[in-house]
Amino acid sequence: MKYSKVPEATIRRLSRYSRCLEEMEEKEEKVVSSAQLANKCMVNSAQVRKDLAYFGEFGIRGVGYYVKDLLNDIKRILGLNKEWRMAVIGMGNLGSALLSYKDFLKQNYKIVAAFDIVPPKVIGRVSEKLGKPVEVLHINRIREVAKERRIDIGIIATPASEAQGVANLLVEAGVRGILNFAPAQITTPEGFVVKDVFFTTVLDNLAYLLSNS
Amino acid sequence: MKYSKVPEATIRRLSRYSRCLEEMEEKEEKVVSSAQLANKCMVNSAQVRKDLAYFGEFGIRGVGYYVKDLLNDIKRILGLNKEWRMAVIGMGNLGSALLSYKDFLKQNYKIVAAFDIVPPKVIGRVSEKLGKPVEVLHINRIREVAKERRIDIGIIATPASEAQGVANLLVEAGVRGILNFAPAQITTPEGFVVKDVFFTTVLDNLAYLLSNS
Repeated sequence: MKYSKVPEATIRRLSRYSRCLEEMEEKEEKVVSSAQLANKCMVNSAQVRKDLAYFGEFGIRGVGYYVKDLLNDIKRILGLNKEWRMAVIGMGNLGSALLSYKDFLKQNYKIVAAFDIVPPKVIGRVSEKLGKPVEVLHINRIREVAKERRIDIGIIATPASEAQGVANLLVEAGVRGILNFAPAQITTPEGFVVKDVFFTTVLDNLAYLLSNS
Repeated sequence: MKYSKVPEATIRRLSRYSRCLEEMEEKEEKVVSSAQLANKCMVNSAQVRKDLAYFGEFGIRGVGYYVKDLLNDIKRILGLNKEWRMAVIGMGNLGSALLSYKDFLKQNYKIVAAFDIVPPKVIGRVSEKLGKPVEVLHINRIREVAKERRIDIGIIATPASEAQGVANLLVEAGVRGILNFAPAQITTPEGFVVKDVFFTTVLDNLAYLLSNS
């Protein structure tokens, strides 16, 4: 299904709601009001209702939301009801950290390949879901491996100077989206999806808030 | 100065404009139009003008903006005309990656301390600005060191289970803000500023865009 004109901030909050709902489900909580959900996620309850309204009607008046149902609905909206197969490119400290990032494993995000220019034989990180070490491959195998392992998303964790080159390879290899950690603006063909995680942008935001509080 | 009601997205874009302007300054470009700046930063030019309008009048009609002046103005707005002194807590792969993150060094962000529960004597990373290795200290020294080294910002790079405890220590130690990489929602006293970098939130956003494109 296609949703139009949903603000990015709403999508970010949906992601947060899903985390809160997961915690509730683990505690076997059955029902939650928008006020309770809002409180747990540290937003206001009108915001919760407004965010959900973009996608239809949820919950039952006077009762609230069924935790399990709302969680499933949000996961479906976000596209998390399928497995996302990912490759990490760049095996420095950051790339290695991503390989063992537990929060990916909890979700349907699966790292199925790792690449570098100079690959060590086998790196020590173990994907807990796969239960075996991820072998680091040479970047020149990316096209073949992307096809073979059906990779959806490429995660760029290289130095800034290498990011555009790697992005080009990922596009050629038929990967559909990029999560870019390299502090460089990369360009891709229209329709291709790139999301940047620039640590310095978040720090700038923090600096601004500290300077103006 | 206090600015009110500036959207967070505007602050994020200001940060991006400043990076683009820095690149222009390095190339010794003197003047830029809002269309050129917008093009370089991949936003539309009305957006550039709207974002800047929150903070006053910039540029000269028919000429554009002086690169150096606009860069200085944006840095002043974001609070980047001062040095921000930071400590990283948690010396796993991610913490180590942050210690050598070059983009921090390019800006006025300075990592002046590193903490862990079990500190190695001296870790291998070298801050290129400081020119000497950063010694990893035991977390129980945080209060004393935060004062001594005038730490403004604490960067949490611990497992999720440790994040709240570390946040409490940072608040007690008189640190003013937190950049939180641990995938856990932390709570702090009112007025204290926390910014989260949750990799999974960004991935969720990417998954949403891929599912709906």
